[in-house]
Amino acid sequence: MSYKKGLRQFLVCTCVFVLILMIISCSNIENNTEYLLNEGDIETAGQFVKTALADQKGYNLLKELTDIGHRLSGSETSLQAIDWAYNKMLELGFENVTKQPLLAPNWVRGDIEKAEIVTAGSHRGKELRIAALGGSVGTPAGGITAGVVEVSSFDELRNMGERARGKIIFFNRPLDMSLLNTFSGYGGAVDQRTQGAQQAAAVGGVAALVRSVTTKYDNVPHTGTMGGYPDGIERVPAAAIGQIDADLLSNALNDEPDLQINLDLSAKNLPYKESFNVYGDIIGSEKPDEIIVIGGHFDCWDKGTGAHDDGGGCIQAMEVLDLFIRLGIKPKRTLRAVFFMDEEIAQTGANKYAEYALASTEKHVAAIESDRGVLTPRGFTADTDNALIEKMQGWLPALQQARIEWIRPGGSGVDVGRISNVTAKFGYFTDDQRYFDYHHSANDVFSEVNPREMELGSAAMAILVYLISENGF
Amino acid sequence: MSYKKGLRQFLVCTCVFVLILMIISCSNIENNTEYLLNEGDIETAGQFVKTALADQKGYNLLKELTDIGHRLSGSETSLQAIDWAYNKMLELGFENVTKQPLLAPNWVRGDIEKAEIVTAGSHRGKELRIAALGGSVGTPAGGITAGVVEVSSFDELRNMGERARGKIIFFNRPLDMSLLNTFSGYGGAVDQRTQGAQQAAAVGGVAALVRSVTTKYDNVPHTGTMGGYPDGIERVPAAAIGQIDADLLSNALNDEPDLQINLDLSAKNLPYKESFNVYGDIIGSEKPDEIIVIGGHFDCWDKGTGAHDDGGGCIQAMEVLDLFIRLGIKPKRTLRAVFFMDEEIAQTGANKYAEYALASTEKHVAAIESDRGVLTPRGFTADTDNALIEKMQGWLPALQQARIEWIRPGGSGVDVGRISNVTAKFGYFTDDQRYFDYHHSANDVFSEVNPREMELGSAAMAILVYLISENGF
Repeated sequence: MSYKKGLRQFLVCTCVFVLILMIISCSNIENNTEYLLNEGDIETAGQFVKTALADQKGYNLLKELTDIGHRLSGSETSLQAIDWAYNKMLELGFENVTKQPLLAPNWVRGDIEKAEIVTAGSHRGKELRIAALGGSVGTPAGGITAGVVEVSSFDELRNMGERARGKIIFFNRPLDMSLLNTFSGYGGAVDQRTQGAQQAAAVGGVAALVRSVTTKYDNVPHTGTMGGYPDGIERVPAAAIGQIDADLLSNALNDEPDLQINLDLSAKNLPYKESFNVYGDIIGSEKPDEIIVIGGHFDCWDKGTGAHDDGGGCIQAMEVLDLFIRLGIKPKRTLRAVFFMDEEIAQTGANKYAEYALASTEKHVAAIESDRGVLTPRGFTADTDNALIEKMQGWLPALQQARIEWIRPGGSGVDVGRISNVTAKFGYFTDDQRYFDYHHSANDVFSEVNPREMELGSAAMAILVYLISENGF
Repeated sequence: MSYKKGLRQFLVCTCVFVLILMIISCSNIENNTEYLLNEGDIETAGQFVKTALADQKGYNLLKELTDIGHRLSGSETSLQAIDWAYNKMLELGFENVTKQPLLAPNWVRGDIEKAEIVTAGSHRGKELRIAALGGSVGTPAGGITAGVVEVSSFDELRNMGERARGKIIFFNRPLDMSLLNTFSGYGGAVDQRTQGAQQAAAVGGVAALVRSVTTKYDNVPHTGTMGGYPDGIERVPAAAIGQIDADLLSNALNDEPDLQINLDLSAKNLPYKESFNVYGDIIGSEKPDEIIVIGGHFDCWDKGTGAHDDGGGCIQAMEVLDLFIRLGIKPKRTLRAVFFMDEEIAQTGANKYAEYALASTEKHVAAIESDRGVLTPRGFTADTDNALIEKMQGWLPALQQARIEWIRPGGSGVDVGRISNVTAKFGYFTDDQRYFDYHHSANDVFSEVNPREMELGSAAMAILVYLISENGF
């Protein structure tokens, strides 16, 4: 064989090889960006959206729920709401409707909640708008009267040394409003709420006063768990203060560094009390033992009625199942709406359900959590392997009908995140710019919910659930 | 040359040819989906977002503007607002600040606006919440008392024949809430408002009463232009009615088909009056004659203060320029914020600016309109050639920092759409689920604006403007 002939053959082979490689790579590009949906899928997705938007049934159910009152774990109204949910699931025709018993925290705020500047001077008599943090002890009767030191970080507090002893520690670092993602802003400030009392006690402080972790500049205090009291540390009370009064107090401290506050809180931790998760199913027609969970947490803080956080998320889970019923769509796999009790304090509901799932002979294929407000849909995070996520991105043309723009790798949520034996967990992501305006405060009420924004979320999850139910993993 | 040799050469050539084709096609795929931004672009985009969100300067400017009052074309408060805008542009350091004179409609609502069921029966004395439509004539003093016929379409009205003569025509077709796009829903119902009076007159009706075109189920009437009176047709008055009272009236007509309403309106059209567009520039450092317009309409209906529609859009345009100033970024091309007067009735401001642009020696390269509420960004439509749109899609990684998800072919807006000699026109698209809750009603006030949602819009437009200014077309 001549040299030239060999070169030619080599060239032919190389070309064919490269050609094959390029065909493979080009077709890969296509597979990654376009997973085939059939026409029926697109049509069904459209029906979920139209029906949810036209009927506003979930929105009206949320009205019923929030009319009961708040749902702080252990409270009377939370137990009434649990009964409402149980009966509503039966009424809607869910199967296997279950109240799953558990023992949940029973923290009560009580009647007294007051902070007043008591020292002589121009600020004397000023009452600051506060709310005890969940899990906080109360003060002795008549309150604590003490001076105040303001800090913006734990390091600053530690460096203060003896100056902090005997004082009320005022954690005044605001949520960083410059961040696009409000959950990142929240995450960067909430340590003051979850560790403030411990950090105050560690330097000999007598209480913690924490600037509300919120995106809204008003004077409404935003509560939330204070993270509990580790053994071996003094149990000092902790409260949130409205942003306007946080600024007022900061300015007052500039004028009068020695001013004193009387802080009076009647909060207390009672023994854990019986409560319940509530769930109900639509049994799958082909694979009844394969379970798709859609859930939110049913408890909420006591200042509002948890319309966004997370009564709305629970009602969306309920409405996902009800949309299948309304449209006469029998899912191949079993759909389960789960209302988890006690996400806010000890996650006893999440743990109870996760234990159940682990022990059960059922196969949990997917679990979706809605706990970012009932605001317009933006996307889903998926906690599963990347190949599966890429495949699901082919579903976007159906999901976009409910304004879902993306499916990305990411965590799911506090509740469904605890389920260990499930193929894929999802977090439902909303347009979050307003979420922390409401979160954990008296602002979180039904009137702050927009029906269309909420209903699009129900539709978005119904579409995802439908595609999982039809295709499996 | 042997047959085999020829075949081999043919194969080599074919392979090389196909290979080249595939390289071209694969690289095309890449070009379409990834246009290179440099690191500085991404960083600058991030600075626009952080600065807008942290300062909330546009939001505070909108407060100042809406505190003046409404900006109905021809009104005293609209002229005060024009002076405010002119002075604010100077104060912010804009150059070439201009009040561009024009003659604008001067429709006034007057003091009387009343609709009452006057016939004996259980509904007697019921006052319906109404608002005269913009451009409507008033009734004779003391009002019109007449029976009512309800229709849901113009066809239905025409088929009614003589039954409609002498009656108040009640157009009661609601906005289709099942549609995802609220602008589509609006578009499907607004003909009742823009042609109702003409259609009523054509069948001998004495007035038009139109169900408010809105996504919010409340009793707030939503006004808007009634489309004018063509020559040769009776000028009958027209008013919007709140959704709750529209349903009430519909039910009352079922009970008592012969009930009569007294409709009393003092509205009138006064002669056109001097008004102004207002604009101001930042002069480009490299191509000062190439103009990028960012605009909204400055007039609004008189029931609210046009916070979303479209004071907010104007302030966003102002803030785009101010963000460049705050960040010390000197644009290569000239940026111009334009506040167009009288979009709502006769578009005299849009026409005036378009005439100016056409006659000017300046080269208009781009024009962006914000008139879909100051709500969270979703995307931009672009009215230009598709190759340019594909190229700009490469900018999405920068724009996504302000939650812009897409750039698609589409129309721009009523005002910048009139400019004929411009390379590319853009419409700024928001998350529109709540927009028509506010639109043209007493609901459109400053308290319904969320600062973060508004500021993200300013940042989104600043990023687009920056990239156009840096790269040109």
